[in-house]
Amino acid sequence: MPQDHRTITVSLTADPYPILIGEGLLGRLGSFLIERGFQSGTRVLVVTNPEVQGFHGAEALTGLESSGFVVRTLVLEAGEERKTPATVAAIHDAAFAHRLERSSLIVALGGGVVGDMAGFAAATWLRGIAVVQVPTTLLAMVDAAIGGKTGVNHPGGKNLIGAFHQPKLVLIDPRVLVTLPEREFRAGMAEVIKYAVIGDEQLFNDLEQAAERDPRGALASREAMGPELLQRLLERSAAAKARVVAADEREGGLRAILNYGHTLGHAVENLSGYGTWLHGEAVGLGMIAAGDIAVAMGLWSQADQDRQRRLVAAAGLPMGWPALDPDVVLTALQADKKVRQGKVRFVLPTGVGSVTIRDDVDPATIRAALAVAASNVVFR
Amino acid sequence: MPQDHRTITVSLTADPYPILIGEGLLGRLGSFLIERGFQSGTRVLVVTNPEVQGFHGAEALTGLESSGFVVRTLVLEAGEERKTPATVAAIHDAAFAHRLERSSLIVALGGGVVGDMAGFAAATWLRGIAVVQVPTTLLAMVDAAIGGKTGVNHPGGKNLIGAFHQPKLVLIDPRVLVTLPEREFRAGMAEVIKYAVIGDEQLFNDLEQAAERDPRGALASREAMGPELLQRLLERSAAAKARVVAADEREGGLRAILNYGHTLGHAVENLSGYGTWLHGEAVGLGMIAAGDIAVAMGLWSQADQDRQRRLVAAAGLPMGWPALDPDVVLTALQADKKVRQGKVRFVLPTGVGSVTIRDDVDPATIRAALAVAASNVVFR
Ligand SMILES: NC(=O)c1ccc[n+]([C@@H]2O[C@H](COP(=O)([O-])OP(=O)(O)OC[C@H]3O[C@@H](n4cnc5c(N)ncnc54)[C@H](O)[C@@H]3O)[C@@H](O)[C@H]2O)c1
Ligand SMILES: NC(=O)c1ccc[n+]([C@@H]2O[C@H](COP(=O)([O-])OP(=O)(O)OC[C@H]3O[C@@H](n4cnc5c(N)ncnc54)[C@H](O)[C@@H]3O)[C@@H](O)[C@H]2O)c1
Ligand SMILES: [Zn+2]
Ligand SMILES: [Zn+2]
Repeated sequence: MPQDHRTITVSLTADPYPILIGEGLLGRLGSFLIERGFQSGTRVLVVTNPEVQGFHGAEALTGLESSGFVVRTLVLEAGEERKTPATVAAIHDAAFAHRLERSSLIVALGGGVVGDMAGFAAATWLRGIAVVQVPTTLLAMVDAAIGGKTGVNHPGGKNLIGAFHQPKLVLIDPRVLVTLPEREFRAGMAEVIKYAVIGDEQLFNDLEQAAERDPRGALASREAMGPELLQRLLERSAAAKARVVAADEREGGLRAILNYGHTLGHAVENLSGYGTWLHGEAVGLGMIAAGDIAVAMGLWSQADQDRQRRLVAAAGLPMGWPALDPDVVLTALQADKKVRQGKVRFVLPTGVGSVTIRDDVDPATIRAALAVAASNVVFR
Repeated sequence: MPQDHRTITVSLTADPYPILIGEGLLGRLGSFLIERGFQSGTRVLVVTNPEVQGFHGAEALTGLESSGFVVRTLVLEAGEERKTPATVAAIHDAAFAHRLERSSLIVALGGGVVGDMAGFAAATWLRGIAVVQVPTTLLAMVDAAIGGKTGVNHPGGKNLIGAFHQPKLVLIDPRVLVTLPEREFRAGMAEVIKYAVIGDEQLFNDLEQAAERDPRGALASREAMGPELLQRLLERSAAAKARVVAADEREGGLRAILNYGHTLGHAVENLSGYGTWLHGEAVGLGMIAAGDIAVAMGLWSQADQDRQRRLVAAAGLPMGWPALDPDVVLTALQADKKVRQGKVRFVLPTGVGSVTIRDDVDPATIRAALAVAASNVVFR
């Protein structure tokens, strides 16, 4: 078979797994599973949601059945508000009805919501059966599907209930992004830019080069960027995530750098009420604010901050947020999971491709960054 | 501090943990946690049930608070019928209300039901926080609390929902058994005899020696056996379980030998309706039946089978079961989780202290063993 795709390995000591990236891979899912050691005849429960099922369910099903897998598909409403233990229970019911055994498999076909729920259901069925992640949003491809974090929401907070459960395989077929709403695509680009800033100068340069063509939109859609750049940024992002995960599987330390842009991002996301901002949009804003803080602290240059800002703009992401009461934001920061002993932890850029973690950011500096962000036009 | 207790280590590569066994340890729980690296001031959620809370809750609380832990106790009804996702949700609610963090701790204070549920809740809160098992039934001390199997029941079957989540510490204080109903004590003895048969001839001999004093009851209660033998059998049983778990953490192979007596035991337990037999009682019967099968297959001697039978009798366990339709039993066996590709897997003794795993047991042999078991007096 010609090498029509790239393989990136998540090098865990216990059970390393491949991330496959390439156009048209979805229809060959079954043969990749066979290569990975699953046997023809294995029972598979595909978990997906109505949109994704409508666009891509048939291809996934054919891709599995043509290799002899015994497939049942569970189609669930999978909005963030449905990411609950009740939905996990529905997946467990389907696992029981489809008589999944320890050697069986759950395939998560969808965005991060489907991936997190199906992954958690797999983690907790028969004390853990295999899961394969087939992400269909850009965000899930570059982030959620890789690294084994699974879970659902508790009334008290997002992702409070969950488990680490690494997938056996991640299959990324950029072609499924054809049907993804552009706003979702842009939100995913925020995480791509994140990987560039925290550790991949080459990726940053690639994105910058494309952005120069159209500073307001060259990175804002699959069409605008074209298949080569898309393939490249998927590879670089997946590799970045894989590296961090391999170095810190259980989020002991290094993995914290993945929270770049997320400290203020989360606060604003929460304060605005879920649904106002997409996660990636809030992260885009959070990165700009973190960049301003880093400039104020003398950690990185205004020139680099301007470069970052141009990338965020070229991805069509919002460049400013409504004026929020800074005291309210500071209080929200304190309530965040990333707080240790009352100190707010910020990931701050020190150059293109490098960051540092600081818990000594002066509240006044945070206020100033908030004021700058609020002074920008909000184009949503 | 004088060495007034024994420590057995579960030698897992990733995170080995101690099992502490000794009279009066419960009141010193906090200091053992400090020794294990937990910090004074850590938030602790104790999960228990009304009986255990009534008898031992105060001592556990004092034991924790005197070392500076910040404790909240959740008292739950914890019958097998309450071992459900709904109860896990209640534990999660308490975890949230008590503001448990990644560094916090859940203490399971109770029998296997509490241990399995609290362990699973810990496994799935914030993607896994620490759990400490403080078993208060004999069965939980020698079996359920050690090895990291946690979970709850699904309407379709027992323990279908769960996770592997090893405790940070297992604290066994035989003194809490003073309040345990004797029938529960005897049920636990079945698992002790199991360890003796599958791998500990010395333990078998110790039990046998005691049994000679009173073949109908010397092993049937804490009082009858006395504290020295109790301490010894707790140590040997915990060590046996620890060895098997260390060799096969995720139940890939060796751990199957722990199912000695469980193949027919489970079938009879299920067919009689839950609640008719305690698990250990069914296991006692299952071991006798497995012994008969092994004799019939020429795997072990009638003399050894008689020795095993005497131990089961001395533990005051039922020695026979009602005549069940053998076809119904055989069908139930097929439905059991221990079936692989339609073959029923039996753990069969080949001597005192050794077993073999066989999936080629002739149905006629199983029928014969069932008939023998049914011909015995059922004294319940
Ligand atoms: N596990 C992790 O490490 C991790 C990391 C980041 C985010 N997450 C989680 O991921 C979730 C967000 O994921 P998301 O951004 O993918 O959102 P999502 O899963 O909600 O999907 C966004 C929308 O896109 C639709 N969609 C998905 N694929 C499509 C396609 N190919 N064509 C058309 N429509 C499609 C979905 O139906 C949905 O309406 C959050 O719950 C977040 O907590 C998890
Ligand atoms: N995780 C494992 O590896 C594993 C192994 C074996 C069994 N189990 C599970 O364990 C459960 C059975 O556990 P169990 O036999 O301990 O039963 P249990 O937890 O139901 O306890 C039995 C009864 O004893 C009472 N009790 C407990 N300690 C007491 C004490 N010190 N004084 C007075 N009363 C006390 C309880 O309130 C309960 O009524 C089952 O759900 C089974 O699936 C798990
Ligand atoms: Zn993110
Ligand atoms: Zn048992």
